[in-house]
Amino acid sequence: MTEFLKLRTAEEAWAVFLNNFKPVVRGEGCRVADGLDRTLAEDVCAPHDLPAFVRSTVDGYAMRAADTFGATAGMPAYLDVIGEAPMGALTKIIVDVGQAVLVHTGGMVPAGADAVVMLEYTNRAGGPLLGAAGQVASGGGFPAFSIEVSRPVAGGENCIQIGEDVRAGQLILEAGRILRPQDLGALLAVGIVEIVAARQPRVAILSQGDEVVAPEQEPGPGQVRDINTYTLSALVRRAGGIPLTYPIAPDRQEALDALARAAFEQADVVVLTAGSSVSYRDLTANTINGLGKPGVLVHGVAVRPGKPTILALCDGKPVFGLPGNPVSCINIFQLFVTPAIRLLLGARPRRPHILQARLARNVPAAAGRADFVRVKLEERDGEIWAVPVFGKSNLINILVRSEGTFPVPLDSNGIPAGTVVTITLD
Amino acid sequence: MTEFLKLRTAEEAWAVFLNNFKPVVRGEGCRVADGLDRTLAEDVCAPHDLPAFVRSTVDGYAMRAADTFGATAGMPAYLDVIGEAPMGALTKIIVDVGQAVLVHTGGMVPAGADAVVMLEYTNRAGGPLLGAAGQVASGGGFPAFSIEVSRPVAGGENCIQIGEDVRAGQLILEAGRILRPQDLGALLAVGIVEIVAARQPRVAILSQGDEVVAPEQEPGPGQVRDINTYTLSALVRRAGGIPLTYPIAPDRQEALDALARAAFEQADVVVLTAGSSVSYRDLTANTINGLGKPGVLVHGVAVRPGKPTILALCDGKPVFGLPGNPVSCINIFQLFVTPAIRLLLGARPRRPHILQARLARNVPAAAGRADFVRVKLEERDGEIWAVPVFGKSNLINILVRSEGTFPVPLDSNGIPAGTVVTITLD
Repeated sequence: MTEFLKLRTAEEAWAVFLNNFKPVVRGEGCRVADGLDRTLAEDVCAPHDLPAFVRSTVDGYAMRAADTFGATAGMPAYLDVIGEAPMGALTKIIVDVGQAVLVHTGGMVPAGADAVVMLEYTNRAGGPLLGAAGQVASGGGFPAFSIEVSRPVAGGENCIQIGEDVRAGQLILEAGRILRPQDLGALLAVGIVEIVAARQPRVAILSQGDEVVAPEQEPGPGQVRDINTYTLSALVRRAGGIPLTYPIAPDRQEALDALARAAFEQADVVVLTAGSSVSYRDLTANTINGLGKPGVLVHGVAVRPGKPTILALCDGKPVFGLPGNPVSCINIFQLFVTPAIRLLLGARPRRPHILQARLARNVPAAAGRADFVRVKLEERDGEIWAVPVFGKSNLINILVRSEGTFPVPLDSNGIPAGTVVTITLD
Repeated sequence: MTEFLKLRTAEEAWAVFLNNFKPVVRGEGCRVADGLDRTLAEDVCAPHDLPAFVRSTVDGYAMRAADTFGATAGMPAYLDVIGEAPMGALTKIIVDVGQAVLVHTGGMVPAGADAVVMLEYTNRAGGPLLGAAGQVASGGGFPAFSIEVSRPVAGGENCIQIGEDVRAGQLILEAGRILRPQDLGALLAVGIVEIVAARQPRVAILSQGDEVVAPEQEPGPGQVRDINTYTLSALVRRAGGIPLTYPIAPDRQEALDALARAAFEQADVVVLTAGSSVSYRDLTANTINGLGKPGVLVHGVAVRPGKPTILALCDGKPVFGLPGNPVSCINIFQLFVTPAIRLLLGARPRRPHILQARLARNVPAAAGRADFVRVKLEERDGEIWAVPVFGKSNLINILVRSEGTFPVPLDSNGIPAGTVVTITLD
């Protein structure tokens, strides 16, 4: 495989691309309620303390901790219950020495109290009946009854202090964060209902080839249906971009140039899935060089599948030429296009969905190129085995049956069965 | 923590729920182009062979393998190139003994040929000039030139046979498959542009509490903003459902009943995030029991955080009462509501996004309950450590800083630092 020796490795190719690429993250307003999986374009700080009042973390009685010092089951502290703190409203009750107020989980601890004792550690000592759930029976006036507290309560116990969760001005989420469900909650908790999110890059996808027809069309002899437009659109969405699709480009320079120009003007990233023969690759490279400067940066990478790959920058916009073969196309997209989209989002790296598995058979490889091997996973005796999925017929048999990929390094001559490999799951 | 001893474990609770739940997967038409992450409701078989014609996997010459038997560099086989097979069209050329036809990757192998030799293994032996890319120069007539083939070519070499990828009638994707980018490609490749997808369950989310106000509202004294509606909506989307949201329910039986009834009629699953105090939990249980039979199945689970959980089925529809605390709420949602949504989708289990990490500090636990510990991840000397994130102030400090969760089993009294634990990532 000397053909690979002249080519740049994936790392070298990416370095050349990065040296020339100056991504600019553009922000746009986004409702937090619609913010799942969007990327923050700016740091977000808390506009106020959270919580904004002292909150009880339990159902119990707010009181002064000092009133319980030294309390035991044999020598309990006695407190007069003088009222109930309502949920969601200010209580005017002030707790004085020897007094207690019934509070609910999440409720406000009244002024004067500095701790809450759980219902479970109290006994009713006198006064009107309690409801079944420990609640004050309706109609009961206050002071209503006394409670016994059978253990000492520490100051601040079962309370969240003002600003204990977050202080006014504190950074709560940093730019580049890809928003998870709980991140939306954190923003809303401090009243932030709109954020500046990174504008989602629009990624133009152009399938090319005289033999390619739209999927709804019945292919004639020698024709095949376009699938790259749709698999790549789905991968663009997964990466955080917005796919733009175009009619299938024929293998003629002028027609391809015109379609690529339209795509280039509408999109932030252009992906051409090239006709795969040698001559058609030249067609794609010519088209890309016509879009802007510097044009093609890398033509061909030492990666299998995916050798006939083009990385380009045209007047600052990333342009990629991907092989037409669906397996190669997906492999190269994940290697180069997904990271480019993430750079345009300013997204911090995400932990990849990986899994360790034991290789079920020998995987031969040629030194000088990085092989990406698709595998399906099987459990045997509680261990996960990675079964390589090979074959010429690459669509159903490789793509659909496999669950992920592992790389064979450039300098490896193969990996023996039984080796533990790290699979990146689809 | 004897309070937990009377409660059902998560597994027991789920078993009780499953014993009563008879999920029905309902199908609906869905364009394949819009099918990413949708679940197939029916098996899909290939309507025809793929490929539908013999395809070349390389740029080269289609010929009869027998013509090259015994060929060597010193004693090559000579073949007359009689034409070029066009891409995307039927060629009328028939390859006879001693003849060859130029073919491109993905192109149709002409009749009479049974193998393709790569361009790289041929030399031009005579006739008009070849183009730079090895293509036949324009204007060149056929028979144009001869090629030398310096090695024997096996029958079928570099060809994909008709039906080699998939046979007509073969199962290509099974019901329950959650569609990945490449699965969309496989469907389109055989001309399937619409599928029967599982109808996405509509999941009603009702936040409850007199102290809860909408996020855009300025909370008064003792009030907090609603966040569960939004974190749970995002989790519903992640699980494959469609969230339906409602106004915040007050802690009054009639008002809660009315809102829950409306939600119950519109949705396939109802989630109430209950006021968290003891009395309010009774309110929720009463409301649920009023919706249908059998009503509440499980009230309280031996799980922390999330003890005050309700699992119910009302006239066949799942209804859940979740704790109001955001950390508990998310934990219980992932334990019970996500699996219920997946059952309604008929979705096959997905490999969870998990990661092995070494515990950075001792985690105490009480036997008799399952603890779910939130952690952030740190890399030290190339190893990933899980740092438990504890604290009363649970929103920013626990939810936002953490990256995942690991369970401490029911019978454990704690896990020592240094133990390797399996983190489920958010």
